[in-house]
Amino acid sequence: MASESHPVHTWTAGAAGARDDAVAVEEPLEIQIRGRSLGVTMRTPGHDEELAVGFLVAEGVVQQRRDIVTTTLCPRDEFGNTITVTLHPECPIDFDALARSGAATSSCGLCGRISVDFAREQFGTVTSSFTIDAVSLARLPAQLRTAQPTFERTGGLHAAAIADAAGTLLTVREDIGRHNAVDKVLGRGFLDETLPFDAHVLLVSGRVSFEIMQKALAAQVPVIAAISAPSSLAIRFAQESGQTLVGFLRDERLNVYTHPERVIMAPPQP
Amino acid sequence: MASESHPVHTWTAGAAGARDDAVAVEEPLEIQIRGRSLGVTMRTPGHDEELAVGFLVAEGVVQQRRDIVTTTLCPRDEFGNTITVTLHPECPIDFDALARSGAATSSCGLCGRISVDFAREQFGTVTSSFTIDAVSLARLPAQLRTAQPTFERTGGLHAAAIADAAGTLLTVREDIGRHNAVDKVLGRGFLDETLPFDAHVLLVSGRVSFEIMQKALAAQVPVIAAISAPSSLAIRFAQESGQTLVGFLRDERLNVYTHPERVIMAPPQP
Repeated sequence: MASESHPVHTWTAGAAGARDDAVAVEEPLEIQIRGRSLGVTMRTPGHDEELAVGFLVAEGVVQQRRDIVTTTLCPRDEFGNTITVTLHPECPIDFDALARSGAATSSCGLCGRISVDFAREQFGTVTSSFTIDAVSLARLPAQLRTAQPTFERTGGLHAAAIADAAGTLLTVREDIGRHNAVDKVLGRGFLDETLPFDAHVLLVSGRVSFEIMQKALAAQVPVIAAISAPSSLAIRFAQESGQTLVGFLRDERLNVYTHPERVIMAPPQP
Repeated sequence: MASESHPVHTWTAGAAGARDDAVAVEEPLEIQIRGRSLGVTMRTPGHDEELAVGFLVAEGVVQQRRDIVTTTLCPRDEFGNTITVTLHPECPIDFDALARSGAATSSCGLCGRISVDFAREQFGTVTSSFTIDAVSLARLPAQLRTAQPTFERTGGLHAAAIADAAGTLLTVREDIGRHNAVDKVLGRGFLDETLPFDAHVLLVSGRVSFEIMQKALAAQVPVIAAISAPSSLAIRFAQESGQTLVGFLRDERLNVYTHPERVIMAPPQP
């Protein structure tokens, strides 16, 4: 359930009332591998397998489909908030490095440069010659709203989507955490063996930070488009990683912050 | 600097252009205590002392003003991204518990209940008899926009503010991370010895999650008001902690999700 109903007291310009309100669900998910916890993320239940797998993709733990043997939501946990991922016996996992990386996921290490460099060392840079025209990009937000039913009800969820060169949304996922929505999209691609997304656009419903760009790099996405603003570090990371970063994609407008050669801005027809 | 300028290629309904765009700054901040790192948070530079102190307040590490002896931005770090907090020698700190709690800050521990219980055990519940009328609450968003210059320029920052019973904003802080903005407001209160905020409203510019409610409880704030939606876990936490949770505070409207007795909804005058 992505939303649940809560009673609410309302006030509208002086008039008090009461009704039920749909609220986005926030619950923790603990990911366990080989008997150890990788930590807990606050997420909206649903597509938990994708979330766990996408997280492992973004952290560089899994590279090929056979690395994931099974994923199981813990049956002893009445809330469904623990998922166990069984990796292939030959898939190595460095828990200590992952713990450090986990710290670095919401951070950058010392003095702000280490983690950016680390991500680029791990995942390389994007060299895809993919292009998309601005008109197709401008059509994405309306498609996303249509595909985001829970946001319409609750106003409380982020969304991420992957689109192809024609500007068609292939996968849309919602979550209370913007990073989780991206993980779910990447996880779906990994499970379907459609990664890398190197001829695709990653669309996010809100702002775009460094961490989103890092996850997009893990999937080799050449164009990242956000409905809202990018951060300074997202721009710097995109510039150095070869990613095209589009922001404020709304109302038939868009801004391209880095590597604009992938966005075709044809002049208006005469 | 909360914002910086970046060149941007624009496209507006078919017309390509170029200009400079103001972007919200995102940089890491590492907090060091007694020679050890407490981890790194991505934040918008500025009010770093408040951010570090507020984080320690929210984690329950410091209780009284003398617990903080000094805070120093590391002079060897050209980016100003390391801050050292000197605690009073008699102020105990359990790094292991803090590391676990750090994990639990963006999470809930096993099965979703542990961390909620932990926070309430640590900080108690809110019993303040504080009340505020809905009209005063409804005036807060316009005040916040006026006090949020960087958001107007960049569209990329969250804000948090503390207001008194008259509906006057006392402190407003911006940050790319919503939790950081709250930490900065709490840190200011701690440094000024105006905590607890038990006759106050905490206003946040976006959505409100479990973690925001947890931080508000550390400061004993009785009313938490968000411009946007609350999560299910924020509502559950507020209900159990005695906090009044207001959401969708905008356009002369508001919703009260928990403990509505603190919001006075006078009937319209005849």
